[in-house]
Amino acid sequence: MSLKHDREWDYELERIVEEVEDRDAKRVGLQFPEGLKRRGPAVADDLRERCDDDVTFMLSGQPCYGACDLDTYLMRRTDVFVHFGHSPMKESDKIIYVPLFSNVDPFPILEDSLAELDGDEVGLVTTAQHMNRFEDMCDWLEERGYDVHTRRGDDRLTFEGQVLGCNYASADIDADQVLYVGGGKFHPLGLAMEHPDKKVVIADPVNNVVTIADTEKFMKQRYASVHKAMDAEKWGVIFCTKIGQGRMEIAEKIIEDNDNAYLITMDEVTPDRLRNFDMDAFVNTGCPRITTDDGPRFHKPMLTPQEYRIAVGDEPLDSLEFDTFHGTW
Amino acid sequence: MSLKHDREWDYELERIVEEVEDRDAKRVGLQFPEGLKRRGPAVADDLRERCDDDVTFMLSGQPCYGACDLDTYLMRRTDVFVHFGHSPMKESDKIIYVPLFSNVDPFPILEDSLAELDGDEVGLVTTAQHMNRFEDMCDWLEERGYDVHTRRGDDRLTFEGQVLGCNYASADIDADQVLYVGGGKFHPLGLAMEHPDKKVVIADPVNNVVTIADTEKFMKQRYASVHKAMDAEKWGVIFCTKIGQGRMEIAEKIIEDNDNAYLITMDEVTPDRLRNFDMDAFVNTGCPRITTDDGPRFHKPMLTPQEYRIAVGDEPLDSLEFDTFHGTW
Repeated sequence: MSLKHDREWDYELERIVEEVEDRDAKRVGLQFPEGLKRRGPAVADDLRERCDDDVTFMLSGQPCYGACDLDTYLMRRTDVFVHFGHSPMKESDKIIYVPLFSNVDPFPILEDSLAELDGDEVGLVTTAQHMNRFEDMCDWLEERGYDVHTRRGDDRLTFEGQVLGCNYASADIDADQVLYVGGGKFHPLGLAMEHPDKKVVIADPVNNVVTIADTEKFMKQRYASVHKAMDAEKWGVIFCTKIGQGRMEIAEKIIEDNDNAYLITMDEVTPDRLRNFDMDAFVNTGCPRITTDDGPRFHKPMLTPQEYRIAVGDEPLDSLEFDTFHGTW
Repeated sequence: MSLKHDREWDYELERIVEEVEDRDAKRVGLQFPEGLKRRGPAVADDLRERCDDDVTFMLSGQPCYGACDLDTYLMRRTDVFVHFGHSPMKESDKIIYVPLFSNVDPFPILEDSLAELDGDEVGLVTTAQHMNRFEDMCDWLEERGYDVHTRRGDDRLTFEGQVLGCNYASADIDADQVLYVGGGKFHPLGLAMEHPDKKVVIADPVNNVVTIADTEKFMKQRYASVHKAMDAEKWGVIFCTKIGQGRMEIAEKIIEDNDNAYLITMDEVTPDRLRNFDMDAFVNTGCPRITTDDGPRFHKPMLTPQEYRIAVGDEPLDSLEFDTFHGTW
């Protein structure tokens, strides 16, 4: 896949400057997701030029993978905290969310994707980056005779039609196929795992390709991990301390019911950190995508909470579902 | 070096159980340094056996390298927080510090180390693990005719004669040689860098060897990093968010004076995290040992605050000193 389009982002500098002035802010925190951290210093320069000399800009060096993953340390210690690249999971006076809407034109690839659609009932979803074109895309499809199904998922999502890596409630629609418009395979893969009965057509305007989501490799890995974990005695139960990734009730329930389960708290869930613990298997109550996408990188089987219940015999194997995350914090 | 002695640690379980009962604690956090995290589940088991069923034990999965590095998230969310492996940097009602005193007998290796001492004036230092034998070791040396110099460094240290990886104020004594009793080279290396005029004799009762600290390799790396950084234009200035590793005044001073310096905040300072930022060099205002010991693992030169001042021409090269950390938080 070649990167056909130059991506340019709208950093909404004027909106930020206005808020800094309105609040007479002296310390401003800037948080970027991993792929955009490199742009941070230039954005800080642009803001410094536009703000008073006594305003200090601080870049978050913490890993960041979503609006679930705010740098709360920096947020608490700054007057204005700007979170780039994601839309609000929960509003707060302190935080300015800059979703970084994309300038990529989605219509050429939408045109190409029509060949993959069966019939005229279709769901439409996209990510925060392309939300600025969502209504246009609906209109465009309707003009071509499609009955477009959309919905706003739940309160974890900001927009109608929006998906997150951990939440595909916006695709709970009455159509057998869903058109996903956006870059990469990360989101449509989760979408297809969460909705195994639907065909997921990927219209990728960034890499300029149309593909069909294929979950086979990932589903095989899930079943293999569950099987391996069936022999486990000692379980590490991970509670993720990131602001929007905590599911303490689930973690505590497992600990209560299983004397060989140990509650382990951490922010970044990495192979290195888990290697420190002598466990036979892990249950991750934090981000489901670490479990499904990075699972094979861990030295011991890593399961979702439901997969844990399957492994210990509380649920049948064929009930296995993709783990999704609901609510805010 | 072979591990001649089995190390056994005193986890002070009875003291912990007593505190849990006294405070009627329901949630107890347990934090271990990296090398001992593996023991965490067994310690949790021992505590569960001795406590009421309604007490939940939570293991910190965050990396931990000192009493400067408390898991504040877990601490705030538990009724009792037990920090193993380090002595108090600052007391708090909530925290129980269990230094894990070693049961290793230091006297055989002390006997061997005498051959390396020149004259009878000697400083004596050790780590928290061997503090339970510090007075005995002083007496032992004095009985053999030595004039033993000891002092309590500053308020970052708990005990007289104690050293930390970042603080060797206890070796500011009136003797040209210092005897370090303890395992490994980490502490004596810092000691020798901080006190280049003193001979540092290492009596290692864990690995059963006597050696002389040699800082040459590290000092060459420091000078090389400073030289490389002299051409840097864009500087990343790291402020570490760990509770006992923050030096904001130093970081802000650099930012104020240098328009090409950017303040970056993070807890774990790792090569991966810094690679996200397009900088020519970094200044680390956090843990000095990440700079000196791990420096070569980073993709760009990483300097201490004083090395930064040398690189930008504010101080002469021959003033280069080991970076130490003072005070608590």
